[in-house]
Amino acid sequence: MGNFKEDIAKVEAFVFDVDGVFTDGGITPLADGDFLRTYYAKDGYAIAYALRQGYKIFIITGGRGATLQKRFEYLGVTELHMNCSDKITRFRDILKRYGLNSDHVVFMGDDIPDLECMRAAGIPVCPADAASEIIDAARYVSEYPGGHGCVRDILEQALRAQGKWAKDCQGVNCTQAAASL
Amino acid sequence: MGNFKEDIAKVEAFVFDVDGVFTDGGITPLADGDFLRTYYAKDGYAIAYALRQGYKIFIITGGRGATLQKRFEYLGVTELHMNCSDKITRFRDILKRYGLNSDHVVFMGDDIPDLECMRAAGIPVCPADAASEIIDAARYVSEYPGGHGCVRDILEQALRAQGKWAKDCQGVNCTQAAASL
Amino acid sequence: MGNFKEDIAKVEAFVFDVDGVFTDGGITPLADGDFLRTYYAKDGYAIAYALRQGYKIFIITGGRGATLQKRFEYLGVTELHMNCSDKITRFRDILKRYGLNSDHVVFMGDDIPDLECMRAAGIPVCPADAASEIIDAARYVSEYPGGHGCVRDILEQALRAQGKWAKDCQGVNCTQAAASL
Amino acid sequence: MGNFKEDIAKVEAFVFDVDGVFTDGGITPLADGDFLRTYYAKDGYAIAYALRQGYKIFIITGGRGATLQKRFEYLGVTELHMNCSDKITRFRDILKRYGLNSDHVVFMGDDIPDLECMRAAGIPVCPADAASEIIDAARYVSEYPGGHGCVRDILEQALRAQGKWAKDCQGVNCTQAAASL
Repeated sequence: MGNFKEDIAKVEAFVFDVDGVFTDGGITPLADGDFLRTYYAKDGYAIAYALRQGYKIFIITGGRGATLQKRFEYLGVTELHMNCSDKITRFRDILKRYGLNSDHVVFMGDDIPDLECMRAAGIPVCPADAASEIIDAARYVSEYPGGHGCVRDILEQALRAQGKWAKDCQGVNCTQAAASL
Repeated sequence: MGNFKEDIAKVEAFVFDVDGVFTDGGITPLADGDFLRTYYAKDGYAIAYALRQGYKIFIITGGRGATLQKRFEYLGVTELHMNCSDKITRFRDILKRYGLNSDHVVFMGDDIPDLECMRAAGIPVCPADAASEIIDAARYVSEYPGGHGCVRDILEQALRAQGKWAKDCQGVNCTQAAASL
Repeated sequence: MGNFKEDIAKVEAFVFDVDGVFTDGGITPLADGDFLRTYYAKDGYAIAYALRQGYKIFIITGGRGATLQKRFEYLGVTELHMNCSDKITRFRDILKRYGLNSDHVVFMGDDIPDLECMRAAGIPVCPADAASEIIDAARYVSEYPGGHGCVRDILEQALRAQGKWAKDCQGVNCTQAAASL
Repeated sequence: MGNFKEDIAKVEAFVFDVDGVFTDGGITPLADGDFLRTYYAKDGYAIAYALRQGYKIFIITGGRGATLQKRFEYLGVTELHMNCSDKITRFRDILKRYGLNSDHVVFMGDDIPDLECMRAAGIPVCPADAASEIIDAARYVSEYPGGHGCVRDILEQALRAQGKWAKDCQGVNCTQAAASL
């Protein structure tokens, strides 16, 4: 394990929790058993962009609901694991199946059910408003809280470190993702 | 009545109001007469975890709606009392039926309809943004406002004081609740 | 016109705008043409309480929607005027029909369509985040923004000044409104 | 290109992105494939008012959904372009068809897909919380973030500079738009 800047430059895959990471932790139940969740457009742009650049992006969440499923299928994430009560087993299985070295994997979670994955990932990161146990386990705490840019932040940092973020935005790179919000 | 730290270590049960405690006070009416309310995932985790640890958790609210009912039934709270215009009678009845000593009961409310319960509970607590009358009656004012962690805060404090919060998160304790958000 | 403290003690009626006063200005259109609006539970408590104390409360709004109508009918306001493009005429008509002296009427608005009513009311008040023209016209600017307590604030101030706010909350006064949220 | 104050006084048309500009970037998917977005009433008032004053207002967004369409059709914007993956081509086409000099056109965007339009417009502006690349490209950064007044801010500045903002609000100017929220 090198320093954070060196390690982030080697990232191949990202694993994210949903509630408190893609959202501010707000969850709005509906009468039919589904939930409303409010996502952040700048996160969505970065997810779609990173996927097009070839990064693998996995979602492991205890959350559930048809709308959650639809959101991440629409963004085209590599794999979506919902309603998950044993995140670490799922995490290890993903690494094994995809032949990923955990040193090159970012995990971003915000609460205690994420703790074992935080410890297993080479690059555990979290939102500004994560639970204290998670902040203790993180190598990097985003200045942005859940639902307000923490996902964008870590993707942008990793892609910049690898020269893949559309820094100068010449050519089609910076606009072709416009329709994916 | 000892000091707050001593008393919180003896808590056996929690009684919560809903609007302004589990939510930021925001209430979104729907055309069909129901309401949307936005809950906080970290509160939900803590409620489910505390119930599994054997604590009794009661809800007494003036609020109503099928979705509210569904939310708390899903979390599995001990008893849910909705649409309640006489909270103190309900509170006393609960203590009597469950043989609870009020000294060992936390009550968290945020507005004037909660005031008599605040006075009757051994450990009255409130969110950071409670009404002034409630803040005056509270033994502990959470640094977190309604809907943004005040429920988690008081549960975490009580369970930590009793050595039951998943502090080190070894073994299954810290992940088995993942699916209950 | 005396000073604000003296005048607020003589208030008999309140007239409120909706968007930006009862809400933070957020308006969420639905596909069927209606809108979601998020109200604040502590405002709702104060409206219901003031009505029970005999105050007249009027709503004059440019907003519309079946759900808006339902919300204020449920709270039992004296009169609701929606979709209103000429607020001042409606305001004057209300004063005339109810025999109200404008010196004893509070008007709370937040934006330019409210400006003439602000000037016509004896006690024009506004949320912290009102438009600059409205702030200039207000005799009192609440420390609370729209949707986060400005309605409660002005009701509480007026009722306290008249000894009608449930300050000590003894007896049934402070709990009987619990079911009206 | 003169200074900002001189140039804003010559504006004839406004082009806006939606997510992160008219909203805080929050996007709430629904099960049926549509999305909830929360707009800001004071922005809506200013859009309707500017249109009545004869300004042209265009929307170019990567966003989509029947409700988005309904919102902007209701406000009566000059043209609405949704689901747009090539914003700059659409932007140039609008200028050509309407015979607009880009020096007299405001463009407000918040994220990388807006960057080329920012560079092509004579008066590129952005919300306080725009992406860093956008802030670098802006001639004016509003003190207000997306969904909380940045649209109102730029419209108000341009109309004031041209003596068309209802500054004194005498006569019908300031109330006739009341019903368009």
